[in-house]
Amino acid sequence: MRALISVSDKDGVVEFAKGLAGLGFEILSTGGTYQLLKDNGVAAVEVSEYTKSPEMFEGRVKTLHPKIHGGILYKRDDSSHAAQAKEFEIGGIDLVCVNLYPFKATIARTNDFAEIIENIDIGGPAMVRSAAKNFADVLIITDILDYDEVLEKLRSNSADMGFRRSLMIKAYEHTASYDAMIANYMNERFNGGFGDKKFITGTKVFTTRYGENPHQKGALYEFENFFSQNFKALKGEASFNNTTDINGALMLATSFGEAPAVAICKHANPCGFAIKSNLFESYTEALKCDPISAYGGVVAINGTLDRELALKMHEIFIEVIIAANVTDEALEVYSDKKRTKIFTQESKFLVRSDDKFDFKHIDGGFVYQERDFIQDDEVKNAKCVTTRSASSAEFTDLEIAWKVAALTKSNCVVYVKNSSLVAIGMGMTSRVDAARAAVAKARDLGLDISGCALASEAFFPFRDSIDIANEVGVKNIVQPGGSIRDDDVIAAANEHDMAMYFTGIRHFLH
Amino acid sequence: MRALISVSDKDGVVEFAKGLAGLGFEILSTGGTYQLLKDNGVAAVEVSEYTKSPEMFEGRVKTLHPKIHGGILYKRDDSSHAAQAKEFEIGGIDLVCVNLYPFKATIARTNDFAEIIENIDIGGPAMVRSAAKNFADVLIITDILDYDEVLEKLRSNSADMGFRRSLMIKAYEHTASYDAMIANYMNERFNGGFGDKKFITGTKVFTTRYGENPHQKGALYEFENFFSQNFKALKGEASFNNTTDINGALMLATSFGEAPAVAICKHANPCGFAIKSNLFESYTEALKCDPISAYGGVVAINGTLDRELALKMHEIFIEVIIAANVTDEALEVYSDKKRTKIFTQESKFLVRSDDKFDFKHIDGGFVYQERDFIQDDEVKNAKCVTTRSASSAEFTDLEIAWKVAALTKSNCVVYVKNSSLVAIGMGMTSRVDAARAAVAKARDLGLDISGCALASEAFFPFRDSIDIANEVGVKNIVQPGGSIRDDDVIAAANEHDMAMYFTGIRHFLH
Repeated sequence: MRALISVSDKDGVVEFAKGLAGLGFEILSTGGTYQLLKDNGVAAVEVSEYTKSPEMFEGRVKTLHPKIHGGILYKRDDSSHAAQAKEFEIGGIDLVCVNLYPFKATIARTNDFAEIIENIDIGGPAMVRSAAKNFADVLIITDILDYDEVLEKLRSNSADMGFRRSLMIKAYEHTASYDAMIANYMNERFNGGFGDKKFITGTKVFTTRYGENPHQKGALYEFENFFSQNFKALKGEASFNNTTDINGALMLATSFGEAPAVAICKHANPCGFAIKSNLFESYTEALKCDPISAYGGVVAINGTLDRELALKMHEIFIEVIIAANVTDEALEVYSDKKRTKIFTQESKFLVRSDDKFDFKHIDGGFVYQERDFIQDDEVKNAKCVTTRSASSAEFTDLEIAWKVAALTKSNCVVYVKNSSLVAIGMGMTSRVDAARAAVAKARDLGLDISGCALASEAFFPFRDSIDIANEVGVKNIVQPGGSIRDDDVIAAANEHDMAMYFTGIRHFLH
Repeated sequence: MRALISVSDKDGVVEFAKGLAGLGFEILSTGGTYQLLKDNGVAAVEVSEYTKSPEMFEGRVKTLHPKIHGGILYKRDDSSHAAQAKEFEIGGIDLVCVNLYPFKATIARTNDFAEIIENIDIGGPAMVRSAAKNFADVLIITDILDYDEVLEKLRSNSADMGFRRSLMIKAYEHTASYDAMIANYMNERFNGGFGDKKFITGTKVFTTRYGENPHQKGALYEFENFFSQNFKALKGEASFNNTTDINGALMLATSFGEAPAVAICKHANPCGFAIKSNLFESYTEALKCDPISAYGGVVAINGTLDRELALKMHEIFIEVIIAANVTDEALEVYSDKKRTKIFTQESKFLVRSDDKFDFKHIDGGFVYQERDFIQDDEVKNAKCVTTRSASSAEFTDLEIAWKVAALTKSNCVVYVKNSSLVAIGMGMTSRVDAARAAVAKARDLGLDISGCALASEAFFPFRDSIDIANEVGVKNIVQPGGSIRDDDVIAAANEHDMAMYFTGIRHFLH
């Protein structure tokens, strides 16, 4: 038996090689791996000695040789293959352990193109792909976390076809990820991020019980370990719709730095939000906006869920809680609520990933775009277009309303008072309908929205929404502006003695 | 100068090789390509003769040789590389023309795993990747459509670094696509479509002027040429939001086979839909549902847009028209409407892709799921849970309402009468709010919804929505059922002498 080991990430490789040697494998190796094995007393043969062909061009050519690839690729149970192998003195290579030059670490570290190009591995992927193709005869190990299991299977003689196949799939996932990363990098560097092809590569976090609906299968995939590192289930498991709802609530609750923000979402849209002096008060106020929709909703808490808050939340059925942290006492409060799920990021405040892009499936393909980052100073930099301007407290409400509007499905209108969402209309085909729905709801709930700030994520096309806002006592408005009827809209605001700000920035969200 | 040509798709390769030979290239080739060139009088040297190493194992090992990869990979302007090349008699290979074994065609043709495995190309990707790495010295051609341009550039001595780099990027896109396809295939075959990694690969159709908002860059990517083959701009160019709105309208208009369906959408949600005896009538009725939202909307026409319909549509501002076909006379009608965009699929009826999956970005990753296919017989197979049942005409309205509801953002309620959408509420955090908004809107517009069919994409949690429906004269309801208060809901329907059907199938859409 013969194993070829050539790794860039050398973690654990000495132990693995020792294990293989102990099982009777002859070990072939190259460059740094060979030296490391030798230094640690593992007998190995250099590939150049084995092939009688020198390593050339600063290592660009080492393993691209018929004796290596023939040894990997010939079918052991094919008599003509076996005869040919014998004729040309090609010995079988039965195990290939390879991981690739660190292209990702290199582009993270440097912008030097020659160095980046040098870190595109050629020999490695070729061996990985050869060995994967012949997985029936060759074990292909690309993941350092598999070393122990491989040794275990070899020792117990249980490296069966299912196991070999799973290594094969991992191998092609490995090479596909690698080249997708290279292609995406080149397109970012030379084509502004929008090259001829776009590769979206995700690593499975978990399969969900079903997809958006029970007759659909579904799963969550991550980039860069975001969920593995920042999402822990303390109680229950996330459904497909939970993950998208949590996303909506998280985006909102993380929009105000370390402020004690609490967001309540349903179908990924906000139905409650507040930033008061502490999380308990924030939740209490947030709930008032729409306690009916909050039932069965998702609550994101930008801080620690403690016992006091848990007792308060426990009064109604919340399906999902996502908090930066959760105390044991808080978790204990929920021990009797079977259906409530609790997740944490195990952090001080809720965190986001650093995704720079966004995409969406449409029939036959997908749209891909730069992400819509909402800057903290958009309202500060907005232009007051009315005679009246907002007071400092009113201005804070405008800032909150603006961010909520940017994170709510279009068309939306958002009413905020004393740092709490008091009414919201969203997801409708007409903005004025959204305004009417929001106001009708607030009225039904007996909420007083007089004096509140109103935000719209896109311009008001007509003055009608302003007139409706006036009827309920709105005093301050923020919107992008840009309608051909802006003059009418401004005139309406002035008539009603409102302050109105134009940000010049639209935040459609679909 | 030396070129290596080894192609699976042999289209145009003879002419290309002749062109290269005419420019003084020595041509190396393998197997079938070599034979084809020879048969067509192009002088070529077999790779096995060049390397003095035989083709082995039924072609599994042909080009994986230091003389090939060294010749591709050595840096021409590096004196130590050049000296080494000379020492080991490695001649430069300055152009590599390779396309890969047809893995895709193979999995489309057969389920035979041995044959599929044999069609994983090993030598090809290795050469493509080597040549791409050394793109400064080597031209790498992976696309048969590039043959002419490459010859042209070589003849005019203008294969500059920008051109070489674009070929390099294409090469890594090629190998990344190939391995992504293999990995996805293996995960579909062995892991039910949800393996450890998921690769989504798109080919750019066009960049849009901007993304969802003006400060975001964006582009449309396709699978399997869907847009290249089924989307033609007759007038204007599609914006980012147009593409997603068109998608919404298309899904709806293609849900009823060859019926003359017309869908009007805004923010990807329906605000008008009808199936009458012809497209003109369908549009006329569809528009009545919400003419205000229709302004600036997207209209999908399941058939040919002719002059008569164009004249009717021309009365208000429609931003986007997507029709299976458009007559010249209809296009002429719009010559004065600068802002209206017209697209066609150049087909008899609107078509969909055969995408089986759906996905959505969330912060840090994406969710992936089987697509939500809405079956034609879901209402037919539904269970009548009330004393009264629907008449045949009423049943048709239920079927239409059900499909519209399945394609509208949750929570939604859909009111259909005489095969036309008359009211709709959507995208809200509470179902009863959606019902109230729909009814209020219909009332404002003076629409009579008495006698209409009502559909909800998910169960009614309480009887309140049924009571509201009764107030406006709804007589028939379809919904999945499954609430713990179904008994209340059924009792309410019976009280109001309604017919109600449970499909048992939910269609949340977010």
